[in-house]
Amino acid sequence: MSLRSLGVELHCRCIQTESKPIGRHIERVELIPPNSHCEETEIIATLKKTGQEVCLNPDASWVKRVIQKILSSRRR
Amino acid sequence: MSLRSLGVELHCRCIQTESKPIGRHIERVELIPPNSHCEETEIIATLKKTGQEVCLNPDASWVKRVIQKILSSRRR
Repeated sequence: MSLRSLGVELHCRCIQTESKPIGRHIERVELIPPNSHCEETEIIATLKKTGQEVCLNPDASWVKRVIQKILSSRRR
Repeated sequence: MSLRSLGVELHCRCIQTESKPIGRHIERVELIPPNSHCEETEIIATLKKTGQEVCLNPDASWVKRVIQKILSSRRR
């Protein structure tokens, strides 16, 4: 769940992260390094059908795998 | 350079990728896996000061390093 989608203005966008491995439902992923507004790395996935934004835990191994898979999934 | 920033509607958003290692200027990164609109993985970085969107090459080693660094740069 991302705070921006709730219309709430706060420092960090994520208040909780998705624990279930939802890799197959992910349309795209946004990576936000720590900055002056938020001292945590934030990973926000947009889901395929609903367009819903879901925060992911950067420390979760399934999240790292999903990102590696995106990086290597070039079809030429 | 991203096509969306030019107001052009096409399948893929990227027409060319940044060759220079601009990791330090990156505010956030968007990863878009291949999908029905574009058969390439697209990586679009937003730059810190200008907010400009720049496409990155998923195969470039500096791009992979920047992403790994974001994933591991949690400060708790």
